[in-house]
Amino acid sequence: MIHNVTSESPIGIFDSGIGGLTVVKAVQAALPAERIIYFGDTARVPYGPKSQVTIRKYAYDDTLILMRYQPKMIIVACNTVSALALDVVEKACGTLPVIGVLKAGAELAVNATKNNRIGVIGTQATVSSNAYACAINMLNAEIEVISQACPLFVPLAEEGFIDHPATKLIAREYLTEIIQHDIDTLVLGCTHYPILRRVIEETIGQSIRIIDSAEAVALRTKQLMTESELLNPARRAYAPHLLVSDLPQKFSMLYKLFMGSEMPDVELVEV
Amino acid sequence: MIHNVTSESPIGIFDSGIGGLTVVKAVQAALPAERIIYFGDTARVPYGPKSQVTIRKYAYDDTLILMRYQPKMIIVACNTVSALALDVVEKACGTLPVIGVLKAGAELAVNATKNNRIGVIGTQATVSSNAYACAINMLNAEIEVISQACPLFVPLAEEGFIDHPATKLIAREYLTEIIQHDIDTLVLGCTHYPILRRVIEETIGQSIRIIDSAEAVALRTKQLMTESELLNPARRAYAPHLLVSDLPQKFSMLYKLFMGSEMPDVELVEV
Repeated sequence: MIHNVTSESPIGIFDSGIGGLTVVKAVQAALPAERIIYFGDTARVPYGPKSQVTIRKYAYDDTLILMRYQPKMIIVACNTVSALALDVVEKACGTLPVIGVLKAGAELAVNATKNNRIGVIGTQATVSSNAYACAINMLNAEIEVISQACPLFVPLAEEGFIDHPATKLIAREYLTEIIQHDIDTLVLGCTHYPILRRVIEETIGQSIRIIDSAEAVALRTKQLMTESELLNPARRAYAPHLLVSDLPQKFSMLYKLFMGSEMPDVELVEV
Repeated sequence: MIHNVTSESPIGIFDSGIGGLTVVKAVQAALPAERIIYFGDTARVPYGPKSQVTIRKYAYDDTLILMRYQPKMIIVACNTVSALALDVVEKACGTLPVIGVLKAGAELAVNATKNNRIGVIGTQATVSSNAYACAINMLNAEIEVISQACPLFVPLAEEGFIDHPATKLIAREYLTEIIQHDIDTLVLGCTHYPILRRVIEETIGQSIRIIDSAEAVALRTKQLMTESELLNPARRAYAPHLLVSDLPQKFSMLYKLFMGSEMPDVELVEV
């Protein structure tokens, strides 16, 4: 063990930017007594289009930043790092458990599907990497995975166009084809997409089950902490401790959009 | 003079990413016999949200990359660098003339307005910097400038949603208020926006004159090269020489979207 872990140690969560706040929110909802340290690498976002060497270096940096706070586990809220550099994170944090958003989402989807046809939506980088399809087929090779990149969903979510007619039109454009493949399960393979969940639900109809990777991670975390007897016994709820590598102008607006509450103090760290 | 300049020397153009290709296209249209070297810093895009220190460092790097090709002048196609680091570029290229997209657009708008009411649209970073308003008011303090950030226009343009009903809805949302301010001139203060020119025109109506900063730079360049007797006498048209710091997956699709022609070879440079 690299440092001394107790049930009161925090849970470390990182992402390339602010998208991982949906994971923070889901973990808070599942485990309100846990202390959460979140690092968003807002200075170097997005990771998706960068080379694998660069992404692996960033994943290492991000892990070390969280390790300063002696966490009891690490959650990789970034789909790109989950796909291309989870081993880097695991190595950098020794015996600490690591959960990646991608595998957690894939597992939940595999358990949910009845007809073995799963849809996955994500950024262009995530979809091109084929990472969800690989993770799903590692668990069950029989399952057919149909993927669709939805590149405008991130900017639409960040601009708060949650319920806008333009978002509905774009959702219809992206999702019409994928639902024609008779999927019964749809994975939201990007941390921003839960923000647009209602529009997505309206577009695909009620017969398709939505798998929110953020919720999947939270479930898996609760399970793991329970098994390891590391659940925080505190009876109070903690605000997350936020670290960012750059402070975008819109940060407090985005925090409110993602978390539904006012932004606490934010600490700027150098990368 | 840092290096030997002749009429056959190339014109160097740089931008934080691919947006500056609209400037390349406008310069090519105005001066088809000129050789153009374009550098797009696709590895470090976007500049807008970064700190001024970082932007000034990048501007210096970008200039030095172009200087290797011994240009006869430099065009700064990046609004952020034009606003915050034009002096860095000027210093780094000695006695060579430098034209920034921002000042060229501001000058043309000031000459065009009859009622002294100019609208400016751009990214959040450009609008928050107030750079167009300052440049316009330096030329004529009487002019009222009304600005509006249109953050979804860049992703919509890059996704090729040129004529999409969703783009029309979003354009109406962004532009309805600004045209109520009785402007007679609207500056496209972002290099991506010419891609959406038709939707913007349809939304604002024919009574408002659109100033395309890319065309403004091309006009100013032609004037400057004519005055300095540095026009290339060649009777052939050259394809631009393209340098990028990273090669995004969509690059050739984007090139075609911006330039209307197939992508020539692209050279990868390290930054």
